[in-house]
Amino acid sequence: MNYKLRAGMIGGGKGAFIGAVHRMALNMDGLAELCCGALSQDPEKAKASGRDLFLQDDRVYTSYEEMIQKESELPEDRRMHFVIIVTPNFAHFGPAMMALEHGFHVVIDKPMTLTLEEAKKLQQKVEETGLLLCLTHTYAGYPLVKEARKMVADGLLGAVRKIYVEYPQGWLSTLSEKEGNKQAAWRTDPARSGKAGCMGDIGTHAAHLAEYISGQKIVKLCADLNIVVPGRLLDDDGAMLLKFDNGASGVLIASQVAAGEENNLRIRIYGERGGLEWGQQEPNTLIVKWPNAPAQVYRTGNDYLSDVSKINTRTPGGHPEGYLEAFANIYKNFILTLAAKLDGTQPDPLIDFPTVCDGVRGMAFIENAVASSQSNQKWQDFVV
Amino acid sequence: MNYKLRAGMIGGGKGAFIGAVHRMALNMDGLAELCCGALSQDPEKAKASGRDLFLQDDRVYTSYEEMIQKESELPEDRRMHFVIIVTPNFAHFGPAMMALEHGFHVVIDKPMTLTLEEAKKLQQKVEETGLLLCLTHTYAGYPLVKEARKMVADGLLGAVRKIYVEYPQGWLSTLSEKEGNKQAAWRTDPARSGKAGCMGDIGTHAAHLAEYISGQKIVKLCADLNIVVPGRLLDDDGAMLLKFDNGASGVLIASQVAAGEENNLRIRIYGERGGLEWGQQEPNTLIVKWPNAPAQVYRTGNDYLSDVSKINTRTPGGHPEGYLEAFANIYKNFILTLAAKLDGTQPDPLIDFPTVCDGVRGMAFIENAVASSQSNQKWQDFVV
Amino acid sequence: MNYKLRAGMIGGGKGAFIGAVHRMALNMDGLAELCCGALSQDPEKAKASGRDLFLQDDRVYTSYEEMIQKESELPEDRRMHFVIIVTPNFAHFGPAMMALEHGFHVVIDKPMTLTLEEAKKLQQKVEETGLLLCLTHTYAGYPLVKEARKMVADGLLGAVRKIYVEYPQGWLSTLSEKEGNKQAAWRTDPARSGKAGCMGDIGTHAAHLAEYISGQKIVKLCADLNIVVPGRLLDDDGAMLLKFDNGASGVLIASQVAAGEENNLRIRIYGERGGLEWGQQEPNTLIVKWPNAPAQVYRTGNDYLSDVSKINTRTPGGHPEGYLEAFANIYKNFILTLAAKLDGTQPDPLIDFPTVCDGVRGMAFIENAVASSQSNQKWQDFVV
Amino acid sequence: MNYKLRAGMIGGGKGAFIGAVHRMALNMDGLAELCCGALSQDPEKAKASGRDLFLQDDRVYTSYEEMIQKESELPEDRRMHFVIIVTPNFAHFGPAMMALEHGFHVVIDKPMTLTLEEAKKLQQKVEETGLLLCLTHTYAGYPLVKEARKMVADGLLGAVRKIYVEYPQGWLSTLSEKEGNKQAAWRTDPARSGKAGCMGDIGTHAAHLAEYISGQKIVKLCADLNIVVPGRLLDDDGAMLLKFDNGASGVLIASQVAAGEENNLRIRIYGERGGLEWGQQEPNTLIVKWPNAPAQVYRTGNDYLSDVSKINTRTPGGHPEGYLEAFANIYKNFILTLAAKLDGTQPDPLIDFPTVCDGVRGMAFIENAVASSQSNQKWQDFVV
Repeated sequence: MNYKLRAGMIGGGKGAFIGAVHRMALNMDGLAELCCGALSQDPEKAKASGRDLFLQDDRVYTSYEEMIQKESELPEDRRMHFVIIVTPNFAHFGPAMMALEHGFHVVIDKPMTLTLEEAKKLQQKVEETGLLLCLTHTYAGYPLVKEARKMVADGLLGAVRKIYVEYPQGWLSTLSEKEGNKQAAWRTDPARSGKAGCMGDIGTHAAHLAEYISGQKIVKLCADLNIVVPGRLLDDDGAMLLKFDNGASGVLIASQVAAGEENNLRIRIYGERGGLEWGQQEPNTLIVKWPNAPAQVYRTGNDYLSDVSKINTRTPGGHPEGYLEAFANIYKNFILTLAAKLDGTQPDPLIDFPTVCDGVRGMAFIENAVASSQSNQKWQDFVV
Repeated sequence: MNYKLRAGMIGGGKGAFIGAVHRMALNMDGLAELCCGALSQDPEKAKASGRDLFLQDDRVYTSYEEMIQKESELPEDRRMHFVIIVTPNFAHFGPAMMALEHGFHVVIDKPMTLTLEEAKKLQQKVEETGLLLCLTHTYAGYPLVKEARKMVADGLLGAVRKIYVEYPQGWLSTLSEKEGNKQAAWRTDPARSGKAGCMGDIGTHAAHLAEYISGQKIVKLCADLNIVVPGRLLDDDGAMLLKFDNGASGVLIASQVAAGEENNLRIRIYGERGGLEWGQQEPNTLIVKWPNAPAQVYRTGNDYLSDVSKINTRTPGGHPEGYLEAFANIYKNFILTLAAKLDGTQPDPLIDFPTVCDGVRGMAFIENAVASSQSNQKWQDFVV
Repeated sequence: MNYKLRAGMIGGGKGAFIGAVHRMALNMDGLAELCCGALSQDPEKAKASGRDLFLQDDRVYTSYEEMIQKESELPEDRRMHFVIIVTPNFAHFGPAMMALEHGFHVVIDKPMTLTLEEAKKLQQKVEETGLLLCLTHTYAGYPLVKEARKMVADGLLGAVRKIYVEYPQGWLSTLSEKEGNKQAAWRTDPARSGKAGCMGDIGTHAAHLAEYISGQKIVKLCADLNIVVPGRLLDDDGAMLLKFDNGASGVLIASQVAAGEENNLRIRIYGERGGLEWGQQEPNTLIVKWPNAPAQVYRTGNDYLSDVSKINTRTPGGHPEGYLEAFANIYKNFILTLAAKLDGTQPDPLIDFPTVCDGVRGMAFIENAVASSQSNQKWQDFVV
Repeated sequence: MNYKLRAGMIGGGKGAFIGAVHRMALNMDGLAELCCGALSQDPEKAKASGRDLFLQDDRVYTSYEEMIQKESELPEDRRMHFVIIVTPNFAHFGPAMMALEHGFHVVIDKPMTLTLEEAKKLQQKVEETGLLLCLTHTYAGYPLVKEARKMVADGLLGAVRKIYVEYPQGWLSTLSEKEGNKQAAWRTDPARSGKAGCMGDIGTHAAHLAEYISGQKIVKLCADLNIVVPGRLLDDDGAMLLKFDNGASGVLIASQVAAGEENNLRIRIYGERGGLEWGQQEPNTLIVKWPNAPAQVYRTGNDYLSDVSKINTRTPGGHPEGYLEAFANIYKNFILTLAAKLDGTQPDPLIDFPTVCDGVRGMAFIENAVASSQSNQKWQDFVV
């Protein structure tokens, strides 16, 4: 690859949160650049947002349809290679499908779609076209998450027996969707967010992380979803008992009313021989525990780590990496894979990123969680 | 009180674990002393154990029946005031009942009995006799646990919404009951331990702590108890979803196969206005979290704490207190209450210790947990 | 500003460490871009390095002299705005001076020069030309460092009494400069590194941080610099007692032979009314301690923080930021200041970055530390 | 030993701090008991204090002279075996010397005496009489301190290179000696405390810990002692650079004006191959760091520890031990040694406690620190 790949962003205009995160992650490694955007449907806001990002005026569009259409008409050495979809959930499927239909690769925020059905359609389209779809399950981008995954896969802990994953936040402890909080407004609105609130927004991250590190799949669940803050329309809290395909059991907790918590995603996995613990708020530390030996503190950036975490690390030990670096790893791995595809070469086999399959599984997680919560049968099969 | 109260120990001979803990807790404050014991049924072992403890030979008995009988025949200024029962669960009810019947107060380890039925009988006897029964739920003895309880009771966090309590241990990760581990042998044996293993041994502590701090009672549960290590006869792991009487929901986790964990009891409670977090392994720290203010780190031994934690603290801030001090608080509070009773005075109203009522509730917890786990109905009422 | 500012990098070719860090920091916010470089004196390596960075071949130079000369001849809308100097210390002064003489602004790694004398010349040139010089004391870029500085300045802690700053690393615990470690080779070589090793490399960071947060200046010192690893040519370890201009006293520790430490820069400041503690390895936490109130845990990204930390933060609370974000803050603040200068406007008064004055002070720190260590007089005045 | 050893306490009446700590430490293991006391010179207070402790009225004395005299006249099977001296520093030497002269063993709080000269006289008397003198340097009683010491002695870290020890407290941040704080009053009074305040009170603990764990002796020092709070008569703060006999260098910090700190004694030792870190506020954790392997977290009470820490531990891993247990270890080891002596047997060679030699060294530390601080020569030999 002897040029930067080019991306077009859908959503993410002035004042948006996750769009800015995507751009910093995209920029960090200098491997790709934003060349165009449908940043807002409001023409003035779209224009102003484009200028803030130093986009050329004629590459600033006011709808994703326009962007995809116009970009597909540009010569190959100018047009975007992929779209980045950072709109609320309800506005994921449309642009993703149209982009795929026009030959553009896709980066999309999670949850992938509004419904499982939409997710399956995207999956089918990705399979048909052979295009790449990258789902930004950020937490899978942390180097020590990948190290943990490798430890489990290598059998360091023995067979996995217990998986505890929890994701407490406190930012929805009050009815902030009625107090002018835009993030709260769409995330608690069934029309824009989908069947689940908390379980869709952060429960999907927790479930993905649990399956990603453990290498096990949820096969049964028993969920309890709650609306804790009166007046809210979607679950803002929940917990579930889990069974995994190798027989391991677990617990998943997600809450947005854990007042005082920031973004405290944390996972513990115990196997026959030992356990591990990782938390997103201090992501450069992975603790591995042993029954009769001192616990070990693995730290990002050290030589003793395996290659899979090293290639996802930018700075030496003690120079902390964070959320944006994890996000940038998702991007870098997607971009390197795409560049290899464009160059007709093979990407480094250690490179990975969440795909449309993770997206389908995430949507299934939401639908199963909601169904289980509504049932008074204890155990329910996890159906995709 | 112008003399030390006198105690007789049942169980706790050479090589026992919890008996030694009780003695150190008893000794620490110099308010009471061991005057006799039925430390072992083996006469030689009983004698040797008695000498290790500097007991007079004629106060060393070989059965609890003998001890209670003989002590009750001694003059009042020599005979023991209370018994301390530190045998395995199946051998709790007999000595406790006989002691009460002979007018002795009782200190007993948890769970209180083998069955809920036994527990209710003890409760009835305690009510009849007006004698004291102290159940050593150690963790309720920590000063910051009492501070946390007061915070909740004072409404500092607002109405309680979420209660997460967890108690992972790893010491039963292998089939150690078959490898000569005596502690493991009786705790995994239904005949000696009761209907539940892990849930009885440590789940009861977790449940007690949750109710003690939150001031809420469990009213519904949905439990999943597991035998993880093949060949084991009782649950060594479990989790449950909970509903509390004020409408709060929660999760309780207890496991003895969390390989590499020591004794990691930890609780988090979130209310409308804030949350708190306490863990037994660093018991001198209580973290209180706020939605829009820095978290606060409360520390044992400081002037800013309330009286209820101060009277349960022996050293100034930064001089860490631990498990034995918490245990000694249970004893001190029981002894001061008993001394007041003997003196015909009122004890300090800030003093508390777990009683026969906590013991009944703990046994109910065990029976409800087992029943729920065996059912495929999701929610089950907590029945006492 | 309606275009990205343009930078030219001196040093930082393939295999270099800090050059890549500067580029990621430069890229992150999308406010500037690398347009040219004198990345290596080896033409092949320079070319290859340039291609990795997608530079145009005619903007890849093989000496800083060539780059500065050629760029100054380009039309204004193409030529670089500033140089980034990421060579070893001995090669800082030359390019910095030439850049200033040709009207280019300068970003330069620390320590600023090889000698205090060079530093003063740069300072004079900066004052003459009115150009900007930004010294990348990364740690001053962390939002909670700025919050801490504001707390002290606002008098929250009362008058500062004690300053403890320490910077233990372990990477030079062996004679790695003789084992092929390039970073070790130049940093332990007096010809390339200057009078001090450890004190120049990391002691300067510690001293800068102490003065930056406390608002106090070192006025006396008593230093002990050591060569711990036999065969090394420069200090790899040291400590010093300090006096500050308001009468506060302190201790500074820096070591590169603290085996097992990563990059554990940590500072504690105590005033009349309270104290604060911050450590670089968990940079999103700032602990503020009070004599008779619970300690408070300030965390990056929360609403309760002041504006100066908010404008230096990219993600909400609980989404950890790290070293690259701190580095990017230095760049962003420099770029926004430069853009304002170019636009003829005033930058946000809350924006700051280390300047040539900090560079002079850092070089004075090195020279004073070496002189004090060589003397058997206890206290020595800090002379600039 | 088939009876409890008997102790007589000098000082420690109602309202005293450290006397109560000594009694809890003495009581905990049930190996000895308080049989008499000269708890106060005020007869009423002495009597009341004695009754609180359930002492017989005729064993409650009003001066140490009376106690030692009268006890020495009692029959051997009733009289005390040893005295416990818990008065302020100025009142250590008299009772200690008299006790030794009357054949009583001695437990004494640190610093041992008011002057080095007194300390040497005690040492000479101990050597003459062959009696035991135990100095309660509590922190040497922690099991993980002993584990750390063994690690260093076993060469696990390689030759020691760096020793950092620090002891920040904040309780003297104001002039509390003038505000009715009795502890502050005598500790800041040269007549009762001696030449040094902070360095005597806590600096001696830090120095002892550094030498105890490292196995190295301080041979040179460069000290800076400060009176930070205006109006105070003795140092309330200080720091020093150190050289040890094997060539290692170090830093010792002690402060009682570190506002907001509790009792934050902490030590780090780095050798050629690794480093270790222990802090008194979380004493059940010992971190061992390696240059190219994950750090290890050693925890009290685990099977993987060595015998020397196991015999100083009472509870299994995860049942935290604290300050009183460490204190009780000093007592237990002294008592077991004394019992062996009385029985004519050899104590377990793993048992240790600080002796009169540590007391002499501590007094030398104080005098050297004060002398160095007053000198403008940088390095001064540590003279005993």
